[in-house]
Amino acid sequence: MLRVEMGPSQRGAALPASPIRRLMPLAEGARRRGRRIHHLNIGQPDLPPPPSVLAALRDADQERLVYAPSRGLGEAIEAWCGYYRHHGLEVEPGDVLITSGASEAVPLALRATCDAGDEVLVPEPFYAPYKGLAAVADVRLTPVPLGEDFAPPGAEAVRARLTPRTRALLLCSPNNPTGTVYGRDELAALGALAAEHGLFLLADETYREIVFDGPPAASALSLPGLDEHVVVLDSVSKRFNVCGLRIGAVVSRNHRVMAAMLQLAELRLAVPAIDQRATIGALAAPQPYVEGVIASYRERVEAVVGALARLPGVRVHRPAGAFYVVARLPVDDAEAFAGWLLRDFALDGETVMLTPMADFYATPGRGRDEVRVACVVDAAALRRAIEIVGAGLAVYPGRAPGR
Amino acid sequence: MLRVEMGPSQRGAALPASPIRRLMPLAEGARRRGRRIHHLNIGQPDLPPPPSVLAALRDADQERLVYAPSRGLGEAIEAWCGYYRHHGLEVEPGDVLITSGASEAVPLALRATCDAGDEVLVPEPFYAPYKGLAAVADVRLTPVPLGEDFAPPGAEAVRARLTPRTRALLLCSPNNPTGTVYGRDELAALGALAAEHGLFLLADETYREIVFDGPPAASALSLPGLDEHVVVLDSVSKRFNVCGLRIGAVVSRNHRVMAAMLQLAELRLAVPAIDQRATIGALAAPQPYVEGVIASYRERVEAVVGALARLPGVRVHRPAGAFYVVARLPVDDAEAFAGWLLRDFALDGETVMLTPMADFYATPGRGRDEVRVACVVDAAALRRAIEIVGAGLAVYPGRAPGR
Repeated sequence: MLRVEMGPSQRGAALPASPIRRLMPLAEGARRRGRRIHHLNIGQPDLPPPPSVLAALRDADQERLVYAPSRGLGEAIEAWCGYYRHHGLEVEPGDVLITSGASEAVPLALRATCDAGDEVLVPEPFYAPYKGLAAVADVRLTPVPLGEDFAPPGAEAVRARLTPRTRALLLCSPNNPTGTVYGRDELAALGALAAEHGLFLLADETYREIVFDGPPAASALSLPGLDEHVVVLDSVSKRFNVCGLRIGAVVSRNHRVMAAMLQLAELRLAVPAIDQRATIGALAAPQPYVEGVIASYRERVEAVVGALARLPGVRVHRPAGAFYVVARLPVDDAEAFAGWLLRDFALDGETVMLTPMADFYATPGRGRDEVRVACVVDAAALRRAIEIVGAGLAVYPGRAPGR
Repeated sequence: MLRVEMGPSQRGAALPASPIRRLMPLAEGARRRGRRIHHLNIGQPDLPPPPSVLAALRDADQERLVYAPSRGLGEAIEAWCGYYRHHGLEVEPGDVLITSGASEAVPLALRATCDAGDEVLVPEPFYAPYKGLAAVADVRLTPVPLGEDFAPPGAEAVRARLTPRTRALLLCSPNNPTGTVYGRDELAALGALAAEHGLFLLADETYREIVFDGPPAASALSLPGLDEHVVVLDSVSKRFNVCGLRIGAVVSRNHRVMAAMLQLAELRLAVPAIDQRATIGALAAPQPYVEGVIASYRERVEAVVGALARLPGVRVHRPAGAFYVVARLPVDDAEAFAGWLLRDFALDGETVMLTPMADFYATPGRGRDEVRVACVVDAAALRRAIEIVGAGLAVYPGRAPGR
């Protein structure tokens, strides 16, 4: 039999490789050479989860191994409603669909609100995987630049990019990667624009509570008169340090959109019951646990901002929330620098893995000299990691001229 | 502010409601009226899982709450390889990607092998959610009727339906719903056709071991010379009675297709680590557990086939594998009959929920008088349920003329 080569589909082959994926072999090589790598590249924090999570897992019994309902376990949905009430948001069980993390919530919402070829406006820089999620959902992302110092875009900046195909605005507050927090007025202005132009407001509120100065970020669910427009994308991963459980939710009071999302969710049958149950205790009593999480990130972000600010030629942005720090480095190309750190540099046998930021932009050329630092280890380890970055910058051959 | 109604996307609204979904409110009504319902409509068996599953869950610790690699936990991938070796199949870790059940494996494989508008041939009747999964992946299902007595289709029946857009053949062996098992020669003939015409052979082997007379169903992975063509879609749900864990796999030696599937899988980050770990012990030592599962279904299927065969006008198909029984009922419309059982009938306060089969066909009008019985409770309960169906048929006003 003749052996025929069978290539993947064009769309399967066309997905962009992420910069992190390109850096992975370099990190693997560094590890093989005995380097200790400080991983500041992933949003996988080291904090322990609430004790109720492990207790629920250890209490597993056979009943927990059957299919959960496609929309989620009743008790877990009730727990989500209670969690939102804790934040002053009235959410009914019929408004909630439990998902496999925000990573499932985003494509469900895109597909249920947008047809193929529709456009979604997204403030830039944004969570890089939105690109691939949008590509798979066959919608186009139109970037709207964040303002000076990564401030939320005003309604006029958004309005200028509307086309007849624009169907939704996708916000993330606090924003990954910039930590931008949309104030209530800023959010309301964008909500009014959504109402005026018949857009959905898709609000990724994964980092809701992680705000360093003041209350949690305003939720799109709190906007009056926008029940038809608002779809919140949520996740327990970051606020409860349970990334591996893969539990999130889509929340909307637009029941026709919820019905469409439920029909889509039925195709994957269910989210694992075990993992849903494990989150119930944490959702039912988020405090004081979440306060401790916020305090940890406040300290860590301060440490990183302070350490980066002391490095010559580095411009660091102080985030208002989430747990990432974006900095402009005095280099030609941040991806090349990140690769060089792994391949060619070490300080006392240690090096650092950073996330280059170009992939967080849809506009070509933007973010070339920016990196994102994830504050996922303790402050002392972060200071040491930034010390290593500084030592690297001092001798890096690709340093930008004049900086 | 004027309240604008925001409808879902056209594609979100267009997903077909399943007959089971239409029957759900009737079942809910029957429950409210105090009826006991025998649920023969879902593939959720009642058998206890292997003890190793619960033991692994109870052993949960914080390490299990972090993101697993997108392709799966290393130990779980090794366990899958060991499981395939147990079946005489050489599978390397690089050939395996762990998924959230076969329900994620199917769309990953469709998207990685087919472009929008491509056609996939599928023997009919088939697992009904393939329709929605294909719609979301933007591929078209072309049905190929199973033969007399639901025998596997021959290569000529498949060849007759090829078009320039045909890209894959999607088989399920043992087949849900008919229990059809593809023999080695039948599978090889379809494999040769796939090779000849440059098609992918997507093989859903969820029910692999559940064969009542003889060894497990031949795996597409055993076909020589077809490494570029074969993508196996697998699941632990049925063989280990762990539907709720949502663990499956895609397996292929075509590494370009695997790379495309991995890039798609990276967008959802990870499958929960807890659930992956819980399956390792079962995958490492499937026997004698799976023998017991097969014996249970053999007894149950016999009970249902025997009981249905005694009902006047009913024609029952004896399945070779899986755990469903398909029967033709002497009724005009099986969905109407299933609804009537829930709404208007009871025997001593008990009734039955059946799955009407029309949705398992892509050809309009086929399967109208067929139902699927899932043998997910013990033989005595199944006999009682079929007794109720028989009593219902005896008085059903929509009985087909002359039968």
